[in-house]
Amino acid sequence: MPVKNIIVGQSGGPTAVINASLCGVIREGLSRKEEIGKIYGMIHGVEGFLEGRYMDLGAELSAEQLETLRVTPAAYLGSCRYKLPEDPDSEVYSRLFAKFEELNIGYFFYIGGNDSMDTVSKLSRYGARIDSPIRFVGIPKTIDNDLILTDHTPGFGSAARYVAATVREIVLDSSVYQQKSVTIIELMGRHTGWLTGASVLARKYEKDNPALIYLPERTFSLKEFAGDVKRELARRRCVVVCVSEGIADESGTFICEYGDRELAACLGKKTETGTDAEKEEILLDTFGHKMLTGCGKVLERFVRERFGVKVRSVELNVSQRCSGILASLTDIKEAEKAGRMGVDYALSGENGVMVSFSRRGNGSLYGLDYCAVDVNEVCNQEKKVPVSWISDSGNDVGQEYVEYVLPLIQGAVTVPEKDGLPEYLYRKQIFLENN
Amino acid sequence: MPVKNIIVGQSGGPTAVINASLCGVIREGLSRKEEIGKIYGMIHGVEGFLEGRYMDLGAELSAEQLETLRVTPAAYLGSCRYKLPEDPDSEVYSRLFAKFEELNIGYFFYIGGNDSMDTVSKLSRYGARIDSPIRFVGIPKTIDNDLILTDHTPGFGSAARYVAATVREIVLDSSVYQQKSVTIIELMGRHTGWLTGASVLARKYEKDNPALIYLPERTFSLKEFAGDVKRELARRRCVVVCVSEGIADESGTFICEYGDRELAACLGKKTETGTDAEKEEILLDTFGHKMLTGCGKVLERFVRERFGVKVRSVELNVSQRCSGILASLTDIKEAEKAGRMGVDYALSGENGVMVSFSRRGNGSLYGLDYCAVDVNEVCNQEKKVPVSWISDSGNDVGQEYVEYVLPLIQGAVTVPEKDGLPEYLYRKQIFLENN
Repeated sequence: MPVKNIIVGQSGGPTAVINASLCGVIREGLSRKEEIGKIYGMIHGVEGFLEGRYMDLGAELSAEQLETLRVTPAAYLGSCRYKLPEDPDSEVYSRLFAKFEELNIGYFFYIGGNDSMDTVSKLSRYGARIDSPIRFVGIPKTIDNDLILTDHTPGFGSAARYVAATVREIVLDSSVYQQKSVTIIELMGRHTGWLTGASVLARKYEKDNPALIYLPERTFSLKEFAGDVKRELARRRCVVVCVSEGIADESGTFICEYGDRELAACLGKKTETGTDAEKEEILLDTFGHKMLTGCGKVLERFVRERFGVKVRSVELNVSQRCSGILASLTDIKEAEKAGRMGVDYALSGENGVMVSFSRRGNGSLYGLDYCAVDVNEVCNQEKKVPVSWISDSGNDVGQEYVEYVLPLIQGAVTVPEKDGLPEYLYRKQIFLENN
Repeated sequence: MPVKNIIVGQSGGPTAVINASLCGVIREGLSRKEEIGKIYGMIHGVEGFLEGRYMDLGAELSAEQLETLRVTPAAYLGSCRYKLPEDPDSEVYSRLFAKFEELNIGYFFYIGGNDSMDTVSKLSRYGARIDSPIRFVGIPKTIDNDLILTDHTPGFGSAARYVAATVREIVLDSSVYQQKSVTIIELMGRHTGWLTGASVLARKYEKDNPALIYLPERTFSLKEFAGDVKRELARRRCVVVCVSEGIADESGTFICEYGDRELAACLGKKTETGTDAEKEEILLDTFGHKMLTGCGKVLERFVRERFGVKVRSVELNVSQRCSGILASLTDIKEAEKAGRMGVDYALSGENGVMVSFSRRGNGSLYGLDYCAVDVNEVCNQEKKVPVSWISDSGNDVGQEYVEYVLPLIQGAVTVPEKDGLPEYLYRKQIFLENN
């Protein structure tokens, strides 16, 4: 077999372990000297590569740097949210494949989520059409854990560990005063509640906080929420509530879009008289934008009005996906292995596949088998939390979920430190380059 | 000297090290068996103690639990925001001192910030008035670092380490795309910018992000901010801005209170015609509340309107003060020592004092001398970041600040873990007790 080069890219939102997968691709590539020549990295994914930007990873990174890369969050190569054209006759494809040929590429790896798998799918189909020998392999990554045909996705375990540990600390923080209070924590997840579910692990004792957990897989009702909060406030001083950003009511309206009318309806208050257009104006600012608010703020306002207790809302925000310090060692190891397996599958002849995890068991039986699944079946699908894992009352997750997530958050990572701060590896240019 | 008992309480907002100071009081108390009998803890500070709630810390906590307590964030005993009456003839004082006598208290310790030092001041003055033999000592604590007559306060170093490390991770997260973007990080600090200043440590390279840092010690001008962002957007892809929640303009109006009028004035747009009252309505919701928004959201909206680039705002929120995992070991050690020194001072006869830090030097010369300062001079004062430590342009902090803060964030803490999560020490009742 002639020696061919690798090209690898990162795409979509950052995670704590996307660089561990990159590290896996590089390390496996370096170890297969008889088949692999250079290991190129696309800067800013396919989008940057189309503009001619890439680097020689194998040559530029030392073994020590690779070790640091493995525990560095975000995306070392930079990322993109670029969708390849649907039309296979688009000149984008011929340009891309010409560049591949120029660089003597034999193996293409793309680390990403749903949209990135769509890229792998399209490239492999175009490749088949023109009889290209290049093999295209997807390496999964998403904190949302919403890819199908895999037990879970790299990135999720670290985000889940961040959520569980941080919610536990916020529960401690919220509980210091003797006055009644409600704390609402808004977690990432527009369509799926995998990450929000992880807040259940913050509980240390039975009946510990968070008292209420709402996932977008279940319809959210402000009335039922009011009943839940009322019951919890009667039984404890401090009520902590965890919600997915994407919770929506039975009409499909996101709670984060709720304004005066929706809240007043549930509070039994009358809004001001006026036309609908006038009322709508309150929700929009002069420049025509909806208020920049999340469901946490909406629920904060609702609870304050309804119960008159101290309320605070906290949005955990991007730290959920970019905390390297709280990354799960299990997740880091699996992400690196996913990168290595991707190279292995490509060299074994696989094409148009995604690396997939299959779980052997839970608890002490936990372990993974790796396999390759058809990337065309994965892309543009969405895996939701099974409704049977959510409590009947719709405000909690059950033991099945706990057993599912617990093995994924195990183990702490040692991040190199300098001057008291994590010393991550990044391209200096990522900040200074201006194009 | 007859054996007397200790009573210790925690007050004000949580920090990562207030329990380390508690641990210091308990450990020093336990080691002075000839002078100290029991070590009582007030549940929910003076407020809960007045309701008869306290516990026997020396008897209830094992040596192993004390070690865990030392690294547990928030407030083990619970806290309060209770201000003692100004009137020394209030029955509150006679009730309190009767309870002290009942419990054979000889030494009173209060771990807290400004308001808590006010409590120590009032109690010591009342004690002098009635010739009480009880000695009252304050142990400083606040993430805001705004107490005078001390080099810094326990709690600040850990919060600063959290801010520096988290901002560094968010900078990485923000920089993955090649599109121009602005990320605004809102940090705690209503009146002082000590904590926001710590974001400077997130920089790894010269000219690294955060590009702009604004403290409340300097007047904030939206016009100058627009100029700063414009200049930074011209020189880099990704601009990260750190702001204190309490930034205000020259009229003293907080930026978080800005609505359409203020933004339109700077954007050169006209707001709708209408009376002032009608315009004001846009800022208020139907129930009469100001929108629940911080200055980060206001600036996010402004930048989007003004520059049309991708913008995100992130509020670091309570994790700044309650992250035990990212606590500074230096801070933990100093907080514990402050607790120990408090007991030492009380036993040496000091009364109406606060434990204070005096710094020997920076860098490798860093070290602390401990002393006792008059608590009456400390309370109700506020220490601000020296204006000379802020750059002339008002959008950065200088080397003096870096040298000041760097020693305070050194060292990582080992938090005991179970099932992949921090295993902190807390009273189960803190969640379930309902009074």
